Amino acid sequence: MPVIYDKVALIGLGLIASSMFWSGKRTGAVGHVSGFARSAETRETARRIGLCDSVCDSIAEVVADADLVVLAVPVGAMGAVAREMAPHLKPGATVTDVGSVKQTVIDNVGPYIPERVHFVPAHPMAGTEHSGPESGFATLFDNRWCLVVPPEGTDPAAVDRLEAYWHALGSQTERMDVEHHDLVCAVVSHIPHLIAYTMVGVADDLRRVTDQEVIKFSAAGFRDFTRIAASDPTMWRDVFLTNKDATIEMLGRFTEELFALQRAIRTGDGEQLHAYFTRTRTIRRSILEAGQDTDKPDFGRVQVGK
Amino acid sequence: MPVIYDKVALIGLGLIASSMFWSGKRTGAVGHVSGFARSAETRETARRIGLCDSVCDSIAEVVADADLVVLAVPVGAMGAVAREMAPHLKPGATVTDVGSVKQTVIDNVGPYIPERVHFVPAHPMAGTEHSGPESGFATLFDNRWCLVVPPEGTDPAAVDRLEAYWHALGSQTERMDVEHHDLVCAVVSHIPHLIAYTMVGVADDLRRVTDQEVIKFSAAGFRDFTRIAASDPTMWRDVFLTNKDATIEMLGRFTEELFALQRAIRTGDGEQLHAYFTRTRTIRRSILEAGQDTDKPDFGRVQVGK
Repeated sequence: MPVIYDKVALIGLGLIASSMFWSGKRTGAVGHVSGFARSAETRETARRIGLCDSVCDSIAEVVADADLVVLAVPVGAMGAVAREMAPHLKPGATVTDVGSVKQTVIDNVGPYIPERVHFVPAHPMAGTEHSGPESGFATLFDNRWCLVVPPEGTDPAAVDRLEAYWHALGSQTERMDVEHHDLVCAVVSHIPHLIAYTMVGVADDLRRVTDQEVIKFSAAGFRDFTRIAASDPTMWRDVFLTNKDATIEMLGRFTEELFALQRAIRTGDGEQLHAYFTRTRTIRRSILEAGQDTDKPDFGRVQVGK
Repeated sequence: MPVIYDKVALIGLGLIASSMFWSGKRTGAVGHVSGFARSAETRETARRIGLCDSVCDSIAEVVADADLVVLAVPVGAMGAVAREMAPHLKPGATVTDVGSVKQTVIDNVGPYIPERVHFVPAHPMAGTEHSGPESGFATLFDNRWCLVVPPEGTDPAAVDRLEAYWHALGSQTERMDVEHHDLVCAVVSHIPHLIAYTMVGVADDLRRVTDQEVIKFSAAGFRDFTRIAASDPTMWRDVFLTNKDATIEMLGRFTEELFALQRAIRTGDGEQLHAYFTRTRTIRRSILEAGQDTDKPDFGRVQVGK
C-alpha cells in the first residue's frame, strides 16, 4: 500500500488514537507517527508499550513537520489545543479530529487553522467501553464507518486523502453535513449512552433492591447497559454539553415513546405491546445483515466464572 | 452425579426448556425427559434435533409419571396449562415454572395444584435474544442465578430438591419472597428490556434520520440495545402486563433520573454529569468482579464482515 501521509501526529493518546496507530502500522499506509498526551503518565505508558514511533513532550514538537495532525482529545479541550498548535503547523498539512460532535469542533478549532492548512473534521463510529493508551487495538475500525464532515470550501484533494487514510485503517467513509451529523450521532450514540447511564444510575440508587442483587442478577438484561455506561466520563460530559440541542430534541422523542408504552402497560393493551416488540426485532435483523453486529447469542460473550 | 429426578416433563420447548434439556444431559442429573409444545411445528423440530428423550403430543401424556413438571411457556399461558395438566399429575410430583414474574404465576397456577403435589416456582436469570426450540444450549445457566420463590408452607424437601436440580444445571440458587422477586426483576430485567425496546422504536420512527443511517452507524452505541429488543415479543408482552405495579414504579424512578440528567445538560452542569458518569463505572466493575460479565472490550464481540 502506498504511504498516504509521511508523518502523522496524534494529539491525545486514548482508545481512538492508540487504535489509529496500531491499525495504521498493519498496512504501512503511514510513515512516521508521533504522539503527544497532556499527562506525563500517559506519555510514559506510551513509551513503555511502543505506542507511536516517537512520543513528544510538547504540542509544538509533535506537530512539527506533520502532514496530518489528529486531534483525539475530548471535544471540550480541542479549542485550546488548536490555539497552541496553530503557529507550529506545516503549510499544506491537514488537521483532522475524531470528536463525536462536529459543530462545536468546527466552531472552536476552525478559527485557529492557518491559511495554508486544511481542516477536515471526521468522526470514526467505533469504540469500546475502555479508555486510555493501553486500550487501543488494530482492528477497532475494521468494517466500521468514519463520517467525514468537511466545512464548505475545503480542498477536495485534502478530503480525498483523509478518506484514503481511513480506508487504510479499515473503515468505510461517508461524507455528511455538520447539522445532520450531530443529529444522527444523537440517535445512534449520544442518546443510547445517556439512557444507559440513567439506567445504571437508577439501579445504583434504589433503597428497596440492594447493589448486591443488582450485580448478581445483572445477566437478565441490566448488564448490557453497564458496558457503555462505563465509557470515559470526560468525553461523554463534553459530548452532552456540546450537542445539547440534538440531544434534547431526541430525548423528547424518547420520553414521548416511553410514556406511550407506559400507558399501554397501565391500561393492559397487550396488542400494542406485542406489535411494538415485533417491530423492533426487524431493526436487529437489518443490523446483522449489514454486518454491524454478530448473531451469536449474547454477542458471543464468553461465559466467565467467579 | 446421582439422579435428582427420574422423570422430568418440559412444557413449552423454547430457549429455556431446550437449554434445561441440554444442560441436564451433561451431568446425568435427570433420567428421562419428556417434552411437549402446543405447536406441531415445534414438536417436529424437537424430534428432528433430538430435543427431549420423548416428545409427546398432549399435556396429559407429557406429565404422566413425571417427578418434575416444568412450565416453560409465556407467563400469560401458564394458568390454562396448569388447569389442563392438573388431573394427570402423579402424587408426590413437583410442579415448577421458569416465568419472569412470580406473583401472577402463583395466583394463576397455584389454585390448580392438587393436594399431594408440590409447587415450587422458580426463575432462572439467564437468557439470550434468541427463542424457539433450536436456540437452547447446555451452558446457558452456568454461573447464573436461579431465584426460587416457594409460597408459604411449601414442603422444604421439595424446595431443596429443586435447588439441587438447578445446581446440576450449572446455576447458583437464591430464595426470595415473591414481592421482592418481582421488584428485583423489574430493575435488573424488565425495565432494561422496556428501555431497550423504546430506544429501538424511537430510532425506527424518525423522519430526519434514515433507517439506513441508524443501521450503518449502530456500532456507536445503539446496537447494544437492539439485542435485548429482539427478544420474544409474546414473552415480554406477558411480563409487562403481569408485573405492572413494579414496572410502573421503576419507570417512575427512571423518568425522574432521566429528567435530572436532561436538566443538567440544558443548564450546562458539567460537574453533575461528570460525577454521574464516574459513579456508573463502579457498577460495571462490580459486575465484572462478580463474574457476571466479561471484561473483553465490546463483550468480546467477534467483528463481522459484510
